This record gives sequence, C-alpha cells and structure tokens, in this order.
Amino acid sequence: MCGIVGIYNHPEAANMAYLCLCAEQHRGQESAGIASVDDKKRFHHHKAMGLALDIFDARVIASLPGRKAVGHVRYSTTGSSSLENAQPFLVREGQGGLVVAHNGNLTNALEIRHQLEASGAIFQSTMDTEVIMHLIARERSGVLADRILAALKQVQGAYSLVFLSDEVMVAARDPKGFRPLVIGRVDEAYVVVSETCALDLIDATFVREVLPGELIVFDQDGMHSHMMQPTEVHKAYCIFEYIYFARPDSHIFGRDVYPIRQGFGKQLALEHPVEADVVIPVPDSGVPAAIGYAQQSGIPYQMGLIRNHYVGRTFIEPKSEIRHFGVKVKLNPVQDVLKGKRVVVVDDSIVRGTTSMKIVKMIRAAGAKEVHVRISSPPIKWPCFYGIDIPTREELIAAHQSVEEIRGFLTADSLGYLSHERLYWFEKLEPREWYCDACFTGKYPIPLTDAPEIMKESGCGACKKD
Amino acid sequence: MCGIVGIYNHPEAANMAYLCLCAEQHRGQESAGIASVDDKKRFHHHKAMGLALDIFDARVIASLPGRKAVGHVRYSTTGSSSLENAQPFLVREGQGGLVVAHNGNLTNALEIRHQLEASGAIFQSTMDTEVIMHLIARERSGVLADRILAALKQVQGAYSLVFLSDEVMVAARDPKGFRPLVIGRVDEAYVVVSETCALDLIDATFVREVLPGELIVFDQDGMHSHMMQPTEVHKAYCIFEYIYFARPDSHIFGRDVYPIRQGFGKQLALEHPVEADVVIPVPDSGVPAAIGYAQQSGIPYQMGLIRNHYVGRTFIEPKSEIRHFGVKVKLNPVQDVLKGKRVVVVDDSIVRGTTSMKIVKMIRAAGAKEVHVRISSPPIKWPCFYGIDIPTREELIAAHQSVEEIRGFLTADSLGYLSHERLYWFEKLEPREWYCDACFTGKYPIPLTDAPEIMKESGCGACKKD
Amino acid sequence: MCGIVGIYNHPEAANMAYLCLCAEQHRGQESAGIASVDDKKRFHHHKAMGLALDIFDARVIASLPGRKAVGHVRYSTTGSSSLENAQPFLVREGQGGLVVAHNGNLTNALEIRHQLEASGAIFQSTMDTEVIMHLIARERSGVLADRILAALKQVQGAYSLVFLSDEVMVAARDPKGFRPLVIGRVDEAYVVVSETCALDLIDATFVREVLPGELIVFDQDGMHSHMMQPTEVHKAYCIFEYIYFARPDSHIFGRDVYPIRQGFGKQLALEHPVEADVVIPVPDSGVPAAIGYAQQSGIPYQMGLIRNHYVGRTFIEPKSEIRHFGVKVKLNPVQDVLKGKRVVVVDDSIVRGTTSMKIVKMIRAAGAKEVHVRISSPPIKWPCFYGIDIPTREELIAAHQSVEEIRGFLTADSLGYLSHERLYWFEKLEPREWYCDACFTGKYPIPLTDAPEIMKESGCGACKKD
Amino acid sequence: MCGIVGIYNHPEAANMAYLCLCAEQHRGQESAGIASVDDKKRFHHHKAMGLALDIFDARVIASLPGRKAVGHVRYSTTGSSSLENAQPFLVREGQGGLVVAHNGNLTNALEIRHQLEASGAIFQSTMDTEVIMHLIARERSGVLADRILAALKQVQGAYSLVFLSDEVMVAARDPKGFRPLVIGRVDEAYVVVSETCALDLIDATFVREVLPGELIVFDQDGMHSHMMQPTEVHKAYCIFEYIYFARPDSHIFGRDVYPIRQGFGKQLALEHPVEADVVIPVPDSGVPAAIGYAQQSGIPYQMGLIRNHYVGRTFIEPKSEIRHFGVKVKLNPVQDVLKGKRVVVVDDSIVRGTTSMKIVKMIRAAGAKEVHVRISSPPIKWPCFYGIDIPTREELIAAHQSVEEIRGFLTADSLGYLSHERLYWFEKLEPREWYCDACFTGKYPIPLTDAPEIMKESGCGACKKD
Repeated sequence: MCGIVGIYNHPEAANMAYLCLCAEQHRGQESAGIASVDDKKRFHHHKAMGLALDIFDARVIASLPGRKAVGHVRYSTTGSSSLENAQPFLVREGQGGLVVAHNGNLTNALEIRHQLEASGAIFQSTMDTEVIMHLIARERSGVLADRILAALKQVQGAYSLVFLSDEVMVAARDPKGFRPLVIGRVDEAYVVVSETCALDLIDATFVREVLPGELIVFDQDGMHSHMMQPTEVHKAYCIFEYIYFARPDSHIFGRDVYPIRQGFGKQLALEHPVEADVVIPVPDSGVPAAIGYAQQSGIPYQMGLIRNHYVGRTFIEPKSEIRHFGVKVKLNPVQDVLKGKRVVVVDDSIVRGTTSMKIVKMIRAAGAKEVHVRISSPPIKWPCFYGIDIPTREELIAAHQSVEEIRGFLTADSLGYLSHERLYWFEKLEPREWYCDACFTGKYPIPLTDAPEIMKESGCGACKKD
Repeated sequence: MCGIVGIYNHPEAANMAYLCLCAEQHRGQESAGIASVDDKKRFHHHKAMGLALDIFDARVIASLPGRKAVGHVRYSTTGSSSLENAQPFLVREGQGGLVVAHNGNLTNALEIRHQLEASGAIFQSTMDTEVIMHLIARERSGVLADRILAALKQVQGAYSLVFLSDEVMVAARDPKGFRPLVIGRVDEAYVVVSETCALDLIDATFVREVLPGELIVFDQDGMHSHMMQPTEVHKAYCIFEYIYFARPDSHIFGRDVYPIRQGFGKQLALEHPVEADVVIPVPDSGVPAAIGYAQQSGIPYQMGLIRNHYVGRTFIEPKSEIRHFGVKVKLNPVQDVLKGKRVVVVDDSIVRGTTSMKIVKMIRAAGAKEVHVRISSPPIKWPCFYGIDIPTREELIAAHQSVEEIRGFLTADSLGYLSHERLYWFEKLEPREWYCDACFTGKYPIPLTDAPEIMKESGCGACKKD
Repeated sequence: MCGIVGIYNHPEAANMAYLCLCAEQHRGQESAGIASVDDKKRFHHHKAMGLALDIFDARVIASLPGRKAVGHVRYSTTGSSSLENAQPFLVREGQGGLVVAHNGNLTNALEIRHQLEASGAIFQSTMDTEVIMHLIARERSGVLADRILAALKQVQGAYSLVFLSDEVMVAARDPKGFRPLVIGRVDEAYVVVSETCALDLIDATFVREVLPGELIVFDQDGMHSHMMQPTEVHKAYCIFEYIYFARPDSHIFGRDVYPIRQGFGKQLALEHPVEADVVIPVPDSGVPAAIGYAQQSGIPYQMGLIRNHYVGRTFIEPKSEIRHFGVKVKLNPVQDVLKGKRVVVVDDSIVRGTTSMKIVKMIRAAGAKEVHVRISSPPIKWPCFYGIDIPTREELIAAHQSVEEIRGFLTADSLGYLSHERLYWFEKLEPREWYCDACFTGKYPIPLTDAPEIMKESGCGACKKD
Repeated sequence: MCGIVGIYNHPEAANMAYLCLCAEQHRGQESAGIASVDDKKRFHHHKAMGLALDIFDARVIASLPGRKAVGHVRYSTTGSSSLENAQPFLVREGQGGLVVAHNGNLTNALEIRHQLEASGAIFQSTMDTEVIMHLIARERSGVLADRILAALKQVQGAYSLVFLSDEVMVAARDPKGFRPLVIGRVDEAYVVVSETCALDLIDATFVREVLPGELIVFDQDGMHSHMMQPTEVHKAYCIFEYIYFARPDSHIFGRDVYPIRQGFGKQLALEHPVEADVVIPVPDSGVPAAIGYAQQSGIPYQMGLIRNHYVGRTFIEPKSEIRHFGVKVKLNPVQDVLKGKRVVVVDDSIVRGTTSMKIVKMIRAAGAKEVHVRISSPPIKWPCFYGIDIPTREELIAAHQSVEEIRGFLTADSLGYLSHERLYWFEKLEPREWYCDACFTGKYPIPLTDAPEIMKESGCGACKKD
C-alpha cells in the first residue's frame, strides 16, 4: 500500500511532488521520499520515516532542484519498517542514474531474487522493487523503455511504477492493472499519480489512466505509449481500492469512488435491513456507505462517533486499565445520538474483529439499546499478495468463524456483510471479471510463486486464467 | 482558546494529563505543556511548541513523576507565539511552588499589569495569566484558596483555571462562567478538564461542572467548594463554544453539544429554505448543522467536500499559481456529488470571508449549478475579549458589509445566516440571558477595561449589568 | 562559571555575540543564549541547552535582528541544569524590556529572595540573577543606570553583568572585581566580554577593563562611567581564573594569563624539584605550567598524554569493566614518552583526587618507572561562593587529608603543591591582597550571608575587611 | 581517510565499536556508523552524518545487539558527502548478509565498475567499496574467505577492510599495506582497529598488525591467517600517517608515531636552523615536531597559538570583514609569547598555503619581529590516490611554486621544509622502500588505472615495481 507521483517538466517539480504526496498520504504513513534530476543530470533525493508534511520543508525542497521529480509514500507493514525500504529507490547502473517509485507487490520477487543472488547480485533492501532494478540493469541493449519492458516481462504481480532517468520519465502498470495510476497535465508538465485527488490539489487536469499493461514514456516530445502484450488480458482491478483504500474524492479504474462506496451502503441496506432509530458510520472510512444505508433505509443518519484527528501510533497506554483504549484514542461516542436508540453502525470491513468489538461495546456503553453492525464488503478470508496490507489467514476472523460466530464475538445484536454477489449489483461495477476480489474468494488472478502453500490452500493456481 | 486539565491523586498523573490534552487538542495546537509535583514536593514540567502527541513520549512522561499534574494546550494567536507564553506557568513564591493553567482572557490585565510594574513587579511573558500569579503572591496571609480568591476578586474577564501547589489542586471559574470547566473521577483521582470528551478518553466519570464563580480545592479529604460572591450573578456562557469551538461529543454548560449544533442547522433550514438537490457540510465543524439542515429540509445529505487530515500550517506554496491553494490543501470536492447539482453548503461561521469564497468557487468549479451558503450562526461583527480568537473589527467582513454584499463577495447564489433571534429558539438554550453573544451583538457582559475604544464603539459599558 | 558578551551598535550584533560566545565556550558548556533588541525596540531571544556552535545557525542568528545583543554561556552545576536557568534573562518591567547576562555568584541572594517573596514577588528560576532584576524593577525613579546602581548596592558577592534595554547597554562589575570584564571596540561598536580572547576573534581592539565597582552605560554618545562607591575598596580578583579558568591567550586583571600560568610552573620547579627524565602536562590546562616546570628544571618537556577532543559527557560506560574509563575517554598515554622513565606530571589543581589518581595509574601502566605529581596551585580546601564550581568541603580531598595522605591516595612517588606563599612570588602578581584565594585559605573576602555554617567553620566573617 | 573497527565475540560489541570509533574520530568526522549481527543472525545497523558521539546514544547502542559488530568513521571529501556513502556498508547476497568497513581507496574501481555495470550490476553509492561487494557476490563457490580473496585479487589500491557475516569476521589489508590495521584482544573478544589508540581506550591488548597482503578470519576457533600472494612484495606504508594523520599515541607500521614525528622536528632543526627566541607549534598536529625542533635547536618551546576546540565547520562568517576569519575561529595568538620575538612556527605540512599564510600574518600581528616557518615534511606536489584527502595538483601550492615563491606567499621571513632525503634519516624509518611517498615524489607504487592523466604526468607507471 503506497502512493506514487511523477512530475515531468515543471519548474517546481519537487514541490509539486511534495503536494501530491500530501494528497496521497492516506496511502502510506510510514515513510516518504522525493528524488529529482536537475538540468545537469545530477540526481538529488531525500527520504525519511514519517509523514511528508513533517519530512519536507522549504529547505529540503530547495535541495531537490530540477524539472523532473518522483515521490513515494509507504505504508507500514510489519518487519520491514526501515529507511532502506523507503522509496523512491535510486540506483546507478550502466546507463546512468535511475529512480523508481513502486506501488504494488510482486508475487515472484523472491524466486527472481534467489536467481539474481545465485548470479552474483547484491541487495541493499528487502524490497521487491530492488529486483526490478536488477532486471533492468541486466538488460543491456535498447533504450530505457525497451529495457524496462524486458524486465517487467519477467516479473509477476501488481505494480504501478514511475521511473526517472536523467532524460525521461516512464510510467508503467502491470497487465492486470491491480493498482491505479493516472495521468494529468499542468501547464507544460505531465503528472503521474496514484489517485486523481493529487491532481486536484495542484490544479492539474485529468488526462487519462495509464492502461493495464501499458508503459508510457514522457520526453520532450510528449507521451509515448507502449503495450506490454499484444492482446488484452483479463483485468484485475483491486476491489479493495473502492471499498476502503482510495480517497472518496478520487476517480480510479474509470469511475468515481464516492458513489460506488455509497452504492455498497445502499445494497447493504437492501440485503440486511433492520428496524432501527439511527445509522452511524465508523468515521472516516465508513461515512459514504453509512449515508447510502441511511438513504436506502430511510433511517436518520447521524455522526454518533467523533474521530480525534490529533492521534498517532505511539500512544503511551497507562498501566491503569482504560477500557477499549486503542479505539478510544481515535473515537468517542456522542451520547445524545446513541442513548436509548437502536443503532446501525456501518463500517467498510472487518479484519481481526477486535476493533469492531471495541466499537460495539463503546456504543452500547453510551446507552444504545441495540447495536446492529453492517459491513459494506464481504468477509475477508484470504490475505492479499498484490499490495494491500491484509494479515495472514490465522489473524483473519472470517477465515475461521461463521458470520454468527463473529456476531457473537462482536457482541452485536445483528451483523450483516454485503454479499459477494451484491458487491457487483451496483450496476456501474460490471463486469465483475475485471476485479480482483481474492481477499473474499481466494481466487488469486496471478499465481503466488513465492507463496505456494497459500496457492495450495486456496485450491487455485491463478483461477481467472487468461 | 485553550484547553486545560488537572489530575489529583493518580499514580500516572502526567500520562492521564497527556491523554486529556490529546482529547482537547482541538482547543489549541500552538503549544502544549504538563507540570507535575512529586511526593517530595518537587515540581517538574515540560512544554514546547506543537502538538501534545509530538511533544510527549514515554521518556518525557517519565520525567514528570508524581500523583498530581496540570496540563495545557494553547491556541496560536498572532504576535505571541513563543515558548514564554506556553503553559502551564510555574512560579516560585513565598509559600513554595505554584503552577497554573488558564483558559480564557482577562479584560483588565493590562491595567493591573501597569499597576504591578509601577510597584516593581517583573514579567517574563506577555500572558495575562502572569498577572494572576503576581496578585496571588502579593496576598501573604491565609491558605492558598483564600489567596487565590483574593487575587481573583481583582481581575475581570473570562477564566477557567487549574492551580497546583505541592499540597493541593485548585479549580476556579469566573463568576460569569464564560469558559467550560468540568470535574470527573477515575479510581481515587479527581480530574478537572475543559470538556467531557477528555473524561471519556480516560474512563473518568462525569461528576459535575465547576460552577460559575466557584473555586474548588482538591485535597486528601476530597472536594471543598467556595463561592466567590454570595449572590448569583448573570451567567455569560460563550455561545461560540456551542457553535464551533467545543467538540460535538462533549457536554458543557449543562447540555450536549451535538444536538444543539444540529438544532442550529434545523432552525437554519426553517429560516432560510431553498430548493436544492444536496446538502453538504464544510467538514468537520459544519457536519452536525448540515445533518440538521438536511433532516429539516428533506434534501439529501452528502459529503461533497473531503477533508485532508494530513496537513499542517507550513505548506510551501508553489510560485506557479494554484487556485484556492490555502483551501485546497485542506478540502477537495467530490465531483459525483456536486456536478450539475443545486448545492446547499453549510458552515458554522464566517470570519473574514475569504475561505468561504474559495470554497464556493471550488464547489462551482466542480460543476455545481447553484451554490447556496448557509451559516449556522449570526454574522460576527465584534471581536471577542474573553478568549476566542476573533480578529479585529477591520478584518470581520460582517462588521462592514451587508448580507447581500457578503453574498456577492462569496459569489454564492444565496446566503443565509441563522438569525440572532432563532439562535435561541432551539428550546434547550433558553434563557438567552445566560449566554455571551457579544461577537454578534457588541453587548459585552464584562467591561473591556483594557480596550476602551471598543467599549465606546459598541456603545455598551458591560450591557448585561448584574 | 559563565561567559558573557554585550554588543552595542553593530549591524550584525547577534552574529558578533555568537562568535564571542564560541571564544568563551570554555567558561560554560551547559547552555547558551543570545538576546537582541531591534530598531523598533522589540526584543528577540533564543537559548538552549548545549554548545553555542550547536544552538546557533544562520537561521537562528537571522531571527535575532538589531544592532544590540547580549549573550551568555553557562557552566553545568549540579541540580540546576534546566532551560529556566539559561541566560540571557529577559523580563518586562515598568520601563520596558530588560535583558541581563551574569557571570558570578551572589552571597546574599537567598536572603533577599526571601524578603522579596515575603513582599509578593514571584520567581521563575532558581538563579540569583533573577533577584537583581526584581531589585531593579522595584527602583522606580531615575534612569536605568541609577536604578541598576541602587539595586546592586543591595547585593553582595561576585558579579560581572551586561544589561540591555531598548535604549542602552550597561556593564557592571562588583566592587571587588571577582570576575573579569573587558571592553573592546570594533568599527562603530562597543563590545563587552569576559575575556579578551573573544575580542581577538572578532578583530575588536582592547579598550580597557571595566573597573571593580564600575558601571558603564553605552549609548549613542559613547561610554559613561559611574563608580558604585566613592573610595576604593580592596579588590578580590579570583586567583583561580589565572590558575585554571581563563583561556591562556586572554588578558585579564591587567595581565596576560599565559606567563602567569607558566610562572606558577617555574615556582613549582623551584619549590618541589625532583630528579626525572621527562615533564609532561595533563592537557590542555596543565600545558603552560608544565612548560614552565620543564624550563626551570631543565628536564625535557614532552606530550606524554594525548587528549581526545571528540568526547562529551554522555559516554555509555560498558558493563564490562574498563580501567580508568572516565579518564581514558579523554586522555591516552604515549608509551614511547613514558616507558622506563621517571615522569613529572604537571596539573593545575586537585579537587576530589580521583581523576589525578587514575592519571597516575595510567602513566604507570604505560611503563613509567616513577610518577611525580606536581600541582601548580595550593591545596583546595574550601568551596567557592563567588562563581567557581568547587564542590562542598566533604568532597574536597585536601580539606581532610594531608599532602602525604593524598600522595598515597594518588599512588604517586611524590606530590608537590605550589605553596600559597610561592603563588604570589611570581613578581607580577603582587600585591597579593588584590586576590581572592579563599578556596585555599578559607579567608572569604565577602560575607557568606546565605551560607552561615561555612562562615562559622572558616572562622572568618569576611576576613579581608575593607 | 577513514577509521574502522571490528569486534568479534564481545557481549557489548556495539558499545565497544562505538568507543573505538570515538578514539578514531580524528580519522574522519563526516559520518559514522555501526552494524551488528545478533545471535539469530539478524543484521542491525545505524549510520548518520556527524560525529560518533552525537550519533550514538544508549538507545541507539541498544538497537544494535549481538556479539559481533563493525564500525566506521568517514572523512569528508568534496562531492560525495551523503548518507549513501556512509559506512559500514550492508548488503544481502547469495550467502546471506555481509557488512564491510573500508579504509583506503582503490585505483581501478572505476574500471571494474564499468565492467560490472556492463554486465548488469546496479550501484547505490559512489563508493569504491561497493565494487568489492559486487566482486565477492559474483564469487559463488567456496567459503567467505575464499570469495573475498578471489575478489580482492581483482582490485588495485589501498584497502584495510573488516567484513562481518552472520558467522565470521574477516580482516584484510592490501599487499602493500598502505593503511594501518591492527589486532587486539579483550577478554574473549578479538578487536580489529585502524590505530592502537582505540585498543587503549577499551583496555584491549595489542596482538599484532594485520600484515600487508594478509586476510584473517575470526571464528569460534580463533584467528586464521591467509596470505593473498605467496611471495612478499614491496610494502608501501603511507608516510603521511606518520607525518600527520595517525594519532601521536598510536603504534602503527611497527613503530610508535610520537617519536617519529618528534624525530622529523629534530631533523628539521638540523636542516633548517635559524636564530630565534621561541619555537611554537601549529596545534595540535604540529606539537611533537615543534618539541623536537626546540630540543634539537635549544630554542625555548612555547604554546604561542591556542586552539579553540569548540568549533565546527559551519561558522557563519559576518559580512563585516574579520581578518583571517577561518584561521581565527580555530587559533588565537598568545601575545606575551610572541611580542617582539623572533618566532619559529612548526607545522606538519602545507597544502594550499592559505592557512599557513594567515597564521604567519596572525603571528606577526601579535607583535613577532620575525616569523620563520618550518614544515616537518617535504613539499606536497602530487595528489594521493590511496586514501588521503590531498586535492588536485592545481590546488597544491608546491606543485607550481618554488620554496622561495611559497615563502613570499606566506610572507614569512624564512621557510624550510624537511627534505625528502632527511625524512628517512631518522634511523627507525629505514628502509625507505617500504613507504609510499608519492605525494612528494609522484612515484606512485600502484598504477592509477582510473587516473591515466596523472600517471602520464608523473612519468611513472607504478614506479616501485615488485
């Protein structure tokens, strides 16, 4: 889970990249970085742990001159939180410097890495992205675009990429298009970002998405498109971008996120109606679906939980027990909305179930007579290998428990998930074959070369074969 | 505008104070501080510019031992942003150490300061709070509570205070009760905070509010109440706490904030109806009123503007112009909600008008057919001298322009303010005499000794005399 | 132990003050600060814990505009290491802002403080300097110089002071002149510093010393001298400035430091000769005396101990024992110089004795056949109350042990201190009545009002009465 | 110019490495780093710009667990001051993790780098050290020692190296032994450091030097020596380590540094005598040679220049001119020593000449009647390619000017360099064939593959052929 940006031919490239990273900060809060190339073909870069806002100031931006820049925000995943794994990733290879920013996850990186190591390659990070750079470096002939194409043919998985050499910027997206990647224009500059909300911030106009399987070179003559394979393959857009990950004001995979998320809420109301007095979201991610649920059901919508935005990850938990501490530092119930009421609480998904359980208890402690949990997605039963931070099967409550068992764990009066069926009923989302929903179904659209045991368990060797 | 907290007799007093400051962070983001007293009567303190979350970590909390602590978050007001003015304020005087945290603003601090200076007092800050400490120090006889009472009799204005000596904690509130101050209990400890949302976070139970004109001593025998004056005076609760400042999940001045704010929205819909397709709030502060407006009017509620929570004050504006830059880093429109629609946008107040104007233009640029601005409070025409950061009359757009002129400035299709009349129609708010609404009316309930020119201009020498 | 600086009428006053602080850094490494006044009479200041070099950079210096500035470096003394006690100290009093930087220590500060507190004064630090500011503030009539004079008449002890108002700079030195204070000139500016080495760095020419008991006002018309008392009193120059504290390249108390320190070494050689192969200093402070000893004795001088200048106070001592760890991180023996040799090691003084003992053992471990310790000052038997950080009597080895006992503790083959008699034989130092040597004799030249028990123990109520 | 350390089998390996880095800090102040391997074969590392003392504290040391650690301090050389180039350098290759710390400089790194890039290797730094890691990674067979040996056979130049895998520590030194590398023992641990002064600090006993061309494996069975080539080759010990670079208390290349440096001063006195009143060093590096000069000549030794140790590289030079600013922040003259005197000032070397010129002027400004400059090494005429930071020929004053011309530039009354002949007269240094003195002669003992133009200009293709 990451956000990326590339700026080509803008007098304030690094500042523009920085603003885009701020707009994409929801895609990753662990580390942020920007690399630029100046007129004299010198590379500059700065990356650090933390938020873009804290990492970059006027002095740092000034240390990143040039009309071309690439930026990256990275999500925290267990065990690999270190500066080595922060991006953009800058290397020097036979044809000069090369920078990359990567959103996604390769499924055969480990296999290739072992092959590369066996032939004498050295690695300085644990990122799959480093594998791509090695493959490019080993392609000795042709221009950069050819070399990148040749390298990408060897990797499997999800990748939206922006490269920067001292000459050109290159954007590329895997043939299934798991992760979004869109192109914008501002003045003379081209902009490539993960989500359109970043274009909005810098007044860039939306041009189009980078297509699945497309590689685009940006040079002084404009945009040049190359397709990785002649015939189209099945797309595998990540359905979770719509459910939770993308910002609601973004436009990705050809559609606006907000109405889809609201549509999930409407379908949920149709599928799991309940007599109640109030519909409340788990803010902020549950807001659009809750509004949809309220509209469809006719039950009044209220903000029954207030989110504290001044919180981080490092709260010092007192030794004296505070009930539901982890949830409480982020959310607080509004008594007037909940007291004596039958409450429908709408959230986008349930992972381990502990947070949802604490929320239910908090709502009930605020005086709610009934608490009905509604989830605007199907039960998550399988981990993601394409870039979303969903934990192992062991930790996924829905991988091991029935809906009724989960309801019991949550201490909710009722629990309703949006069905996998209904997920696509919202008309605009057809055809459903275009989406990867392996986290619900275990039908992984790309073989999991590096995770054979999950392949076996899911009984599915790249189920949606092309 | 500040938030305060006092903890008496808790084994983790500093950590509890820290958590309360995080819950009250919306009351002030400029600086934060905590002071504690340990068993050996030694004082410890730490304060810095920035957010409580960034200032305090486990190591700093460990450097603040003791079962008693006081904390403070401070709002940034022009010209006085410096560490000297950060609180809590710790002095050593004849009877030992004394710490104070202050929310509010005195109206005769300057006058007293001049008197004190004339008698040889020295000041190390520009805070009115320092005046209070001098007055207390000059009261030589009696116990601390008596000395504080004697000192407070000499000051005018708004003050909610928490003091800490090496023996006791003292909470005090001015006779008109401008600012909130509530008491809670957790285990063996007493807790005093500005808003109940801080009690919620640490699992403290609400005991009651500190009364206007009340001083409470917390010692090993419990709570001891003293009234500053024998007969009750007119209260002057700050109406702006309800309109904007307090968190919607708090309970202050005897009532829950959320339903009042929603009630303002309902009244607004009755007073300024309009034919429209969608009601959207300016998030986050406009949300409850917008929900109220939508419910009363029957027009669907949507989140048409998304707030970016990963922003701060130090954005580097690019030289290449970005339209509505300042607003854009915080808000982004959702096209699907706005395009081709007649939009009602609800906000809590208008100060200078420039932000509202940028928002209107942003909504229209997203495709809205009509933009109707609705404000859930009357026009702000007068500055506040009791602790809310409302600028000078010159900068207040409503002090100089008619509603129609403001509408023109905003480029809105219509503009409706909640009338001063209707502000109190929401039944629960009577009697209106209990509220200070000088920012709308110029009827200042306490003389402005230090600002005689405004007194004269408003034609009102403490209008609501007791 | 502190260093101070004042700059009057220089376009880069803060930068000049900063450079002077760097030159005076040996006088105090705990905290550093600078305050300036700009053309609009606004005060600016910045202070922090640590070295001037680390605290001030171009951005901070730029935040301290104006043609007048005052700076301070402070030594770490136990128990009071906190930012509150860092200087310069800035207050606002009846006649505006006032800044002070203080080198020295008052002997009746506590008494006055209790009186001030009894009359309602509040204190924000534990510094004696704050007392002076209160006294000035309470003098209501007359110009600043008169008020300072009136205030200083009430205090006893050692003080070299630089004040800054929005109009003038004032330098003052106590009647006995314990601490140095010199005046320089650079371009249009006046400069006041503790030691001449600071004048050298900024190319200022030496004008003269501020006289004991003199107060000098610097204004647009130049320098104006005022004497605190009509008749001259006995001076009490701190002999320890010559022995250890001042930099050897400075000129203070009317004489150059280097030849005096070398003279101590020569006298030491005459008083305590020994047959030896090599004379080595404990660097850096023992160097001039060791050179003097070598010259007088004819024994070759060598650098037998090398000082590591890349060390600080925060070394993490390993659990696995390292012999003489504390000394070793600072000093390392040169085997070739010491092996098989009879070594004379010259140091300036012995306080607790533990460091000297470790040095002796280190030299012997490097192969020295004999180790003869020579100290270029008499045994320190009494604490200092005038600003030098000499610990309590309990900790002073010479307060309780004979020279022979100390020699045994050091494990030295012989030990010789410069006698109190010989200290003044070096012709230039007469008359000896001009010096305070209470640390050797217990004859305190100013009563120790705040430390009556030491007064009694030393049997000396201000021995050198005027 | 760097300092390195390796610790094998010590319970506090990282802390020991840290202390050694502090002792070796004079070898490089740009960046410092430590990497460790813990019992579970996990690698940990931390590096940053700045001094070891500032970079490492107890918390950071605790984050570097394990009984094996490697550390590095790096000198600032123009153009490559960035964290990427900080060491130790950690990679993951086919056989696991591998860490290296490198002191020295390869002369064919660029050539190899181009070959590696041509075969698809990627680089993340501009360090020659990265080339070594690639070569090792490409050796697929054999144990680590064999692979390192095979890799080192391909590189030319100067290298003292310490490697760490999760199993063993390996130390290696180039066949000519340009840079020092010594082995010590403390308790159960082996220690490898650049200079013996680091062994002294941690109480390690000196075992022996790593021999030129030797590779030593440290494992649980002890030390295992391997020679890179069967027959001995000519050594090329860097003479500049003796002249300036090593600490005087160190023992390297089989000899103590201090007496050699003093011997240079004695030879200098014999070769360039002068009638004078005082001999002074340029501290600290000129001290031993000045003592030698004084002893040989019989002219008294004095500290005529005092060094300010509280300075760094970032002084803000005032706009108002200060004469000799750069030198002045570091050195200040002692008037009493210099006034009216004929002064011999001894320094170790002259590079560009500007600093020496400023020193001469400063001494004269302090009142010296005559200033005689004596340099304890021959004129530096050629850049170093083996790891000493000597600039390009253009910048070396002695490459283009005669001694008399340089004297004129310095404004000295006389100037005398130690002759190349006399450099080796100090008996202990024979045979002179064992030393690299290319900086004086241009006789480079190893071909400069990456700098063919200098090879040609010096007329010398590895002059001292084996």
